[in-house]
Amino acid sequence: MTATPRITIDPAFVERLILEMAEHGSDGGTGVSRTVYSPEWVEATRLYARRCEEAGLKARMDSVGNVWGKLEGSQPGKSIVSGSHIDSQTPGGRYDGILGALAGLIALKALKEQFGQPKRTLECIAFCEEESSRFPSANFWGSRAITGGTRVDDPEKTIGFGGETIASAMREVGLDPALIPEARRADIDSFVELHIEQGPILEHANLPVAVVTGITGIRHYEIELRGTQNHAGAFPMDLRRDPMAGFAEIASGVVNTAHRWGRPAVSTVGRVHVRPNATAIIPDSVTFTLDARHPDPVLCQKLYETHEAFMREVAKRRNLEISWKIMIDHPACPSDPGLVSTLRGAADTQGVPTMLMASGAGHDSQQMAKIAKVAMIFVRSKDGRSHTPDEFSSIEDIVAGIEVLAAGLYRLAY
Amino acid sequence: MTATPRITIDPAFVERLILEMAEHGSDGGTGVSRTVYSPEWVEATRLYARRCEEAGLKARMDSVGNVWGKLEGSQPGKSIVSGSHIDSQTPGGRYDGILGALAGLIALKALKEQFGQPKRTLECIAFCEEESSRFPSANFWGSRAITGGTRVDDPEKTIGFGGETIASAMREVGLDPALIPEARRADIDSFVELHIEQGPILEHANLPVAVVTGITGIRHYEIELRGTQNHAGAFPMDLRRDPMAGFAEIASGVVNTAHRWGRPAVSTVGRVHVRPNATAIIPDSVTFTLDARHPDPVLCQKLYETHEAFMREVAKRRNLEISWKIMIDHPACPSDPGLVSTLRGAADTQGVPTMLMASGAGHDSQQMAKIAKVAMIFVRSKDGRSHTPDEFSSIEDIVAGIEVLAAGLYRLAY
Repeated sequence: MTATPRITIDPAFVERLILEMAEHGSDGGTGVSRTVYSPEWVEATRLYARRCEEAGLKARMDSVGNVWGKLEGSQPGKSIVSGSHIDSQTPGGRYDGILGALAGLIALKALKEQFGQPKRTLECIAFCEEESSRFPSANFWGSRAITGGTRVDDPEKTIGFGGETIASAMREVGLDPALIPEARRADIDSFVELHIEQGPILEHANLPVAVVTGITGIRHYEIELRGTQNHAGAFPMDLRRDPMAGFAEIASGVVNTAHRWGRPAVSTVGRVHVRPNATAIIPDSVTFTLDARHPDPVLCQKLYETHEAFMREVAKRRNLEISWKIMIDHPACPSDPGLVSTLRGAADTQGVPTMLMASGAGHDSQQMAKIAKVAMIFVRSKDGRSHTPDEFSSIEDIVAGIEVLAAGLYRLAY
Repeated sequence: MTATPRITIDPAFVERLILEMAEHGSDGGTGVSRTVYSPEWVEATRLYARRCEEAGLKARMDSVGNVWGKLEGSQPGKSIVSGSHIDSQTPGGRYDGILGALAGLIALKALKEQFGQPKRTLECIAFCEEESSRFPSANFWGSRAITGGTRVDDPEKTIGFGGETIASAMREVGLDPALIPEARRADIDSFVELHIEQGPILEHANLPVAVVTGITGIRHYEIELRGTQNHAGAFPMDLRRDPMAGFAEIASGVVNTAHRWGRPAVSTVGRVHVRPNATAIIPDSVTFTLDARHPDPVLCQKLYETHEAFMREVAKRRNLEISWKIMIDHPACPSDPGLVSTLRGAADTQGVPTMLMASGAGHDSQQMAKIAKVAMIFVRSKDGRSHTPDEFSSIEDIVAGIEVLAAGLYRLAY
């Protein structure tokens, strides 16, 4: 590795790519709704491939719908890859996911223009799906295909909110679900993903960019508390088996536990379904979700155990029936320390001040970690917002993030 | 008033009337769905009128659809009336409402057969509507017409779950909404309503019948708590404005307050709506209902104030925005002490053990209290259940309740 030179990223080009991509799935104002295999998604993937070709990269869509742009190296060996997902929440904003796909493209274009052919092959990627915003169980559909994490029956068993299978959605855009295994890669050395932070930590630290030390472990519980449905007026408090009272105690308890543990532990109750959900009826049941996360594998497990013991205790004391299913269970995923060090050093060479932090959100990187060294770069989010049309990162911060990415890729590939 | 004789109520006749009435709107097994002005309702009102005529009562339907059966007294003066509503929940069971309408009819038939013409005029009634099960804002439609509580524009402004106005529903069954004011009565002295308890207090006390000392005051709040929607992973606990955490604390608090106050205070959170209601998103808002009740007018007010102060305190401390609407606000309605005493004494003459209790549910009696002295008789409910096909009261307990009613009417009218 030679000394890392100063790399120039054109802010106007960055802004133009972000805005033109946001038109595909534009959902009122700054909103974007671009779900996998939708017409908007098709347009966006075509645009991404076209911009790759214009940048002198060799573009292709793989068998699951990921779009790759390749800058061949002068030496043989595994690829260095950077990118993120092209799909969005419904509605999400202009940055979550797509920014990382564009950052990879922009970094490769800048490196090629400013330094010519690399020694090692560089690739950028727009993963086809990460958000589960059309198919609730599809999450990481693109990166799972690359890493061999798609089961044979997944295409027919993955059902959309509209009732369609992901297999039929693939066929509608000309992809054959039987060929998904062909998307698998075994020739990737390192994967670096740039993403918006989605939290307020950089903003509070007054820094533009962070290097991510690891991705949090995540578990999603769906919990049902069952009591006895009764008349809200005629049934005395002391004789009730009220699942709402039990739910309220549990929701307070799990939130308070994570709050007391302090950063980076988080726990969230985001979804509630009450049966029968009527003003004057003590409910029969309350079904709710618990999202619990910690980036330390040991503490993560301890957090889950603390929550589970508390939920059982409340249900038992209140004479309620409780049961739960674990809907998502992703282990904590530490970044590759060497890559973290490379990116931190690269940031210094570009004069970009950074901090280290854990990612509280899940990312394609945790799938890619099965086949490659991974690390991530976070760009400051205004007010820590994401998964909303209001999410925003300034072009200045984004350019700083892409400078760090490009300098890191330079160190790895030139 | 002469000494009250023993009155005979035929259990087989009682059971036959309950079962034949349950056929009109039969909704699977023991379920009944009989909403006001529906075809089932028309059949049920015709049956009620026919059974009145067969019992020697003069039957008529008034301008809003209430069915009256009249046993003329030998002396002039205001009427003594007993009955309840003929409509049901969707589905409700075989007893809520209709049992009181039939009890009035059965009591008058027994009194006429066993003691001939009364001195004072006796009437039974099947109110057309009480449950708001077809038109959510129609509640007490029948008794409000009788007591002058219907506003001129109510028929056109009362909209059904299916979008129809109650005016159009009336016209479909041959009633003219413009004539509702003709249903008004100013010649009722006393109104006694028999109803299932809808709670477990009689069952726990091992008693068949209660005399009701008053109907609870009821207030329904619809409360909105607003925070800031954020990513469940990337946003630290200490920076959140999480309306779910605020909701959980409030729901726990109001339930605990009512529990600590003890009987007869009750407070229930029965309905919750979360926006956007997604597992991995800290909600933007939680909207929920609070149903708070107390039969003592002063303590009722104090309960509301305690809840309101607590909700404001939680919202303020958690930096959440809070607002509420009061959807229903019925004042507490004490029974007439003289009537309560008459019914308690009447029960003693029939050898029926009773207790006094407050009604935690709303009833037509609280409307009738605007124009007459009122009191109620409760019959034991199995497991305290109501508003469900599972509600059940034994024929033995029902007969005991009708004996108390008939003996009370005897004391008032003979």
